[in-house]
Amino acid sequence: MAVNLKAPVAEDILPVSGVVLGTAEAGIKKVGRKDLMLMELAPGSKVAGVFTKNRFAAAPVQICREHLLETNDIRAIVVNTGCANAGTGLTGLHDAEETCQAVADIFNTLPIKVLPFSTGVIMEPLPMTKLLTGIPKAAQNMGRNNWIDAARAIMTTDTVPKAASKRVELDGVEITVTGISKGSGMIEPNMATMLGFIATDIGMSAELVQDTVRAVADASFNRITVDGDTSTNDSFILIATGRADCPPIESDEDPRYNDLLDSLIEVAQKLSQSMIRDGEGATKFITITVDGAKNEAEALKVAYAIAHSPLVKTAFFASDPNLGRILAAVGNSRIDDLDANKISLWLDDVLVAKNGGRYASYREEDGQAVMNKPEIFVTVNLGRGEASETVWTTDLSHDYVSINADYRS
Amino acid sequence: MAVNLKAPVAEDILPVSGVVLGTAEAGIKKVGRKDLMLMELAPGSKVAGVFTKNRFAAAPVQICREHLLETNDIRAIVVNTGCANAGTGLTGLHDAEETCQAVADIFNTLPIKVLPFSTGVIMEPLPMTKLLTGIPKAAQNMGRNNWIDAARAIMTTDTVPKAASKRVELDGVEITVTGISKGSGMIEPNMATMLGFIATDIGMSAELVQDTVRAVADASFNRITVDGDTSTNDSFILIATGRADCPPIESDEDPRYNDLLDSLIEVAQKLSQSMIRDGEGATKFITITVDGAKNEAEALKVAYAIAHSPLVKTAFFASDPNLGRILAAVGNSRIDDLDANKISLWLDDVLVAKNGGRYASYREEDGQAVMNKPEIFVTVNLGRGEASETVWTTDLSHDYVSINADYRS
Repeated sequence: MAVNLKAPVAEDILPVSGVVLGTAEAGIKKVGRKDLMLMELAPGSKVAGVFTKNRFAAAPVQICREHLLETNDIRAIVVNTGCANAGTGLTGLHDAEETCQAVADIFNTLPIKVLPFSTGVIMEPLPMTKLLTGIPKAAQNMGRNNWIDAARAIMTTDTVPKAASKRVELDGVEITVTGISKGSGMIEPNMATMLGFIATDIGMSAELVQDTVRAVADASFNRITVDGDTSTNDSFILIATGRADCPPIESDEDPRYNDLLDSLIEVAQKLSQSMIRDGEGATKFITITVDGAKNEAEALKVAYAIAHSPLVKTAFFASDPNLGRILAAVGNSRIDDLDANKISLWLDDVLVAKNGGRYASYREEDGQAVMNKPEIFVTVNLGRGEASETVWTTDLSHDYVSINADYRS
Repeated sequence: MAVNLKAPVAEDILPVSGVVLGTAEAGIKKVGRKDLMLMELAPGSKVAGVFTKNRFAAAPVQICREHLLETNDIRAIVVNTGCANAGTGLTGLHDAEETCQAVADIFNTLPIKVLPFSTGVIMEPLPMTKLLTGIPKAAQNMGRNNWIDAARAIMTTDTVPKAASKRVELDGVEITVTGISKGSGMIEPNMATMLGFIATDIGMSAELVQDTVRAVADASFNRITVDGDTSTNDSFILIATGRADCPPIESDEDPRYNDLLDSLIEVAQKLSQSMIRDGEGATKFITITVDGAKNEAEALKVAYAIAHSPLVKTAFFASDPNLGRILAAVGNSRIDDLDANKISLWLDDVLVAKNGGRYASYREEDGQAVMNKPEIFVTVNLGRGEASETVWTTDLSHDYVSINADYRS
């Protein structure tokens, strides 16, 4: 039951020259569910990634980091769902390498040029027979128009596939940005059980792709949280194929760079907000902005203290304007010299608290009217400085508990 | 539905010479529910407290801190439930002061010698008319045997009153320690919507009470968590009345001190574990021990990362041995140089993971057998050092969401 989120429509998701995708039912997840995705990249594509900060980084994450350090020439991506290949020790590493070898054989490349991704249950071995049987199947139906199909094949507890596209004209040449992602729980700053892949047909230097993937993540995937858990497998990959009919962008001083970055961020924000709208058990989409902070880190601390508070999240689920819980969460953000008496709180444009206390003219029915909505803006001003940050989150519902208690994911 | 927790029995809860207690229905909470408690302390009692670290400390917490700074001669305690008097600005401070004045008038003392406590909804004004009518009513039934009644009067979402007693012989003289507490959600390190009051009849110097209250909290109330939220009102108060038939303990070098401290910690642990057993929606009582840490802070970081993970908590609720979630939580504890390959995990005495991966002989049915129990020990060894810490927590159930979404607390 996603919040105002529809499945993407085929004609809105544009192919990216230099990228073909294929999917298969490898039988790792349920019968009748696609659970394997292959992506082949044209020669010359530049690829960079950001990965989970969880110290139990899954085997495929470790392999991705290695391969990206060793080569500038990534040619294929392989993703399986149903099993995270995390907490699997040396066997897990061997399994991920064997997966790369199988993909490399099919695409006639080297295993080091393949990036593997897994998502699903932790601490169970990768079912290699199924996986190795599935890879050639997926390779049989590679196509440039398979993005939505690919988005569907990487889903775990997602209820809606996530894909987004944008076309932008850079110096008279039309450029395409298209991405897919998965993830609906365990999503947190620093990435969390989410996989995201965004490709553009313009060329970029290897260094610039690397800088850009971080900037895009910080404006999108690193600003969302469902439950504060950070997974072992989170990865976000940016691909620049260089197939567009224009010279590549070599540095951020290229006059086309800012427009490209904006487009990449727009697609990444659409994907990341889709993950929140499809957050496990979500009934509300909540945008939390903290203004008046001394610096960015402090603004984020407060925003996440609100976004992670189970008491705040259950109040949103209940549409209960029990807004003191938001003040309590702000007070709980571990900023030692925070002055409660300077804090203001708005729900949409309703001023709820001023100078750290209930605003004299605040009426509960006004708070209630906002709480009843499916999309809510929470704004806190700390009265300490000029920094501002925004994060997106969900409520905490019965369905969150059911999804995580009743099914193994 | 508390986990293995019964209401205390009158004969087990011993009076403490120098303390009398009274309760009343002030009508702040529901009709027919006691919601006001008074405690009068004999002259010469020494009192110290530890309070919430939430920067939105409630008005009564601010007043308590002031009064304890200004006098060594606290003579009365007043507690109301139903309203936290937090996020209430200057009005809240005046209301708390007026409450102290009313209590002081009745006990013929000064308002500065009264400590006020409130617990309940945040950001609503204290209903002063009800409170001021209730105070004389509570004063009419003061008695030394009213501890359980007092425990009942300070409850909010608690389902069971919490009281504990212990008798200990110090140098041939029998000493009593008795305490009550309340709290079942929003309980976290650094105290969280909990109130705790422990009294002993032995005398202690003012300085020693102050040092002791912190040591006792760190071994009990600061080692429990339900949902990671820290409230605006948490307070734990230690009282030494000096009415026992022996000289007071002036310093921790007194040979009687260690036995006294042990007894105080024993009572405080009973109370704090009762709060976890009665945690909102709790169906499991989980003891998490982290061994092999470099230092105490690191052990606690990992223990709380496990205890706060919604994915771990929902797996416990489901009795699902999806134990990779525990490894993921360990990896998520933000210890930068943690080596996943050195980590072991036990569930009770079942070795689940070794060297960061599933233990070869681990069988899921063994994990399942432990998960089915209502009381579970999780032990993690980090393989980095000698430090060890233990925290207590609950699972995350449907009832937790119901309690916090369906009722305003």
